[in-house]
Amino acid sequence: MENFTFNNPTKLIFGRDTLDELKTEIPKYGSRILITYGGGSIKRNGIYDRTLDLLAALDMQIFELSGIEANPRLTTVYEGITLCREEKIDFILAIGGGSVIDATKAIAVGALYEGDVWDIITGQDEAKKALPFGTVLTIAATGSEMNPISVITNWETKEKLLWTSPYVYPAFSILDPVHTFSVPKEQTIYGAVDIMSHAMEHYFSAAPNTPLNERMVESLLTTVMEAAPKVLANPEDYEGRATLLFCGTMAFNGVLNQGMNGDWSTHVIEHAVSAVYDIPHGGGIGIIFPHWIRHHLDTTEKKMKQLAIRVFEVDPVGKSDREIAEEGLKRLRQTWDQFGAPNRLMDYQIDDQRLLEMASKAAPSGRIGGFAPSTLEDVTEILKSSL
Amino acid sequence: MENFTFNNPTKLIFGRDTLDELKTEIPKYGSRILITYGGGSIKRNGIYDRTLDLLAALDMQIFELSGIEANPRLTTVYEGITLCREEKIDFILAIGGGSVIDATKAIAVGALYEGDVWDIITGQDEAKKALPFGTVLTIAATGSEMNPISVITNWETKEKLLWTSPYVYPAFSILDPVHTFSVPKEQTIYGAVDIMSHAMEHYFSAAPNTPLNERMVESLLTTVMEAAPKVLANPEDYEGRATLLFCGTMAFNGVLNQGMNGDWSTHVIEHAVSAVYDIPHGGGIGIIFPHWIRHHLDTTEKKMKQLAIRVFEVDPVGKSDREIAEEGLKRLRQTWDQFGAPNRLMDYQIDDQRLLEMASKAAPSGRIGGFAPSTLEDVTEILKSSL
Repeated sequence: MENFTFNNPTKLIFGRDTLDELKTEIPKYGSRILITYGGGSIKRNGIYDRTLDLLAALDMQIFELSGIEANPRLTTVYEGITLCREEKIDFILAIGGGSVIDATKAIAVGALYEGDVWDIITGQDEAKKALPFGTVLTIAATGSEMNPISVITNWETKEKLLWTSPYVYPAFSILDPVHTFSVPKEQTIYGAVDIMSHAMEHYFSAAPNTPLNERMVESLLTTVMEAAPKVLANPEDYEGRATLLFCGTMAFNGVLNQGMNGDWSTHVIEHAVSAVYDIPHGGGIGIIFPHWIRHHLDTTEKKMKQLAIRVFEVDPVGKSDREIAEEGLKRLRQTWDQFGAPNRLMDYQIDDQRLLEMASKAAPSGRIGGFAPSTLEDVTEILKSSL
Repeated sequence: MENFTFNNPTKLIFGRDTLDELKTEIPKYGSRILITYGGGSIKRNGIYDRTLDLLAALDMQIFELSGIEANPRLTTVYEGITLCREEKIDFILAIGGGSVIDATKAIAVGALYEGDVWDIITGQDEAKKALPFGTVLTIAATGSEMNPISVITNWETKEKLLWTSPYVYPAFSILDPVHTFSVPKEQTIYGAVDIMSHAMEHYFSAAPNTPLNERMVESLLTTVMEAAPKVLANPEDYEGRATLLFCGTMAFNGVLNQGMNGDWSTHVIEHAVSAVYDIPHGGGIGIIFPHWIRHHLDTTEKKMKQLAIRVFEVDPVGKSDREIAEEGLKRLRQTWDQFGAPNRLMDYQIDDQRLLEMASKAAPSGRIGGFAPSTLEDVTEILKSSL
């Protein structure tokens, strides 16, 4: 087991009618509140109105930043930063999914940073502080509601970058499964795939002796595989939605990967694809992950075999390790096919025209990955097999 | 899934040579430091000297409270409180296991409380603040290093009471598996049993739809069952000690039981036994738990069956639910027997003389338990079958 530090200060508020907790949480931070959200689904499903009513009853002064994109853009982050400075915002409330929360993290840091927040996102400088912010999560997927991670896209440079800072843990996150009832089928599928991919990125780890964490990851994968079909068949299945929502947070809040180090190449490759073609993250990740596992099967075989037996119920009797791993990989692909996830980049009209551009963006220094290192050539091959 | 709030601010610092982190952590809190510890094993294994060297290099002023008992006593807590007040202590560093940490929690609250800290422990008043404190954990068992729970014994009234306060999460806890190398065999066994019992207290829960948590508990039980024999065979097995230490924290830091509510009768009954006979907690709990499960088998059958299949590898083919559960229960007892845990109260020279006294202490209002309620009569029968 590798040395680690775990310290997650986010207050997770989970369950039915928990939006009311805003009444207790918000006044701790001030009275000038910026609400951030995306395309307006929160207006259709009533969360927007309920939040505004709650804040109005608290005599809060409300400002808004709407229209945050699915792959949130640096230009939108700048807009939010200007608003925070001009309006002397005390607290930001992000209502939405990963994109809204990720943008909010960059805004929270940028508002108190004298330079250009892009320097922090690119790692040229470090955040020293951030405006406090909370979240009302509306989709099971990201994990951003309880971690210090954000992904921002700069369309000028066509870069989609992941950055972290200990100052961007949400102060609180409110997770009401009912808020996810109206998530469209496609987004529900992407979310389930994304959750499983986060858990698997931890799992393919070179750290020795992580038996509890491996089993907890397997627990989470099995649970998502049980819950997702229920929710896809009945979008208002409270218990199924609750399970997915909870799994989404647990997959990426630092609990499962204590003492592990993971790989994360698949995420890096998908971010490069999204930076060029702006496709949904969960869609891309579900296409690429099995190809990453197969490409590196010499390295991934042992863990894939364990997954095959413990999660995908492959009977190991009479099979070689490679056969068991292959069979597990096949069932992983089948699982995502059954969810209805895309399985080829062609599904997004992506062909081999810009393969090298994407590969170079994924591995600008020529090498990525913590468990099974991928060179530029590896990335190109993984992308080619994903077409 | 039931509504829940999870918010655990403790910084968990895990791994080899992590004691050095005191240099970073301690100066955040002040310069007048009270060190609390037990019977002196930390002097024999060198942790005491290393800690003092580290603190001396930081120019800290050190005070000490030693001799904290295995079932920590209110009188010792009072001593610590007086010391904190007289010496204007800024920060307490608990070095030891659950007893030292639990006593430290009561001292931390009592030092800033004008009344008698016993009123807080008995629930007649609530803590509003506490001195900050950290821990250096020296045994895998309690979970107290990352939770807001403490158990204190009042020998005048022969009461051993559990209390909680959001103000008694440790600021940080340092867990170096090497610090547990010198834990004697018996304490290692008690610790492993205690860890499993915490996980099972969560598991026997009436809350609906907790598939992820149930699987995470099962993961932890399986992992402890794997690691404990290795450590008992080779006390300096780093990876085995690391696994047990990590499982101890994870079993009782609020992660596994999000949305569950558990039962906890076995703990309450054991506390009553310890309050009368001062036996080791892990020893008592391992004796009583299987009898609690069996006594309530109509209620516990479904979960015990699941445990039997998923953790104890009982083959369910051709067996009734009851038979599967019974077989699992038998294997749980065998597991603890193989660890070398005591299996009868007689092993501690406890006979039927004071059964009713213990039962009344366990269930003073005549009823305990969140999952399978136990009346005074139930408790008496469970104790009788445990003799």
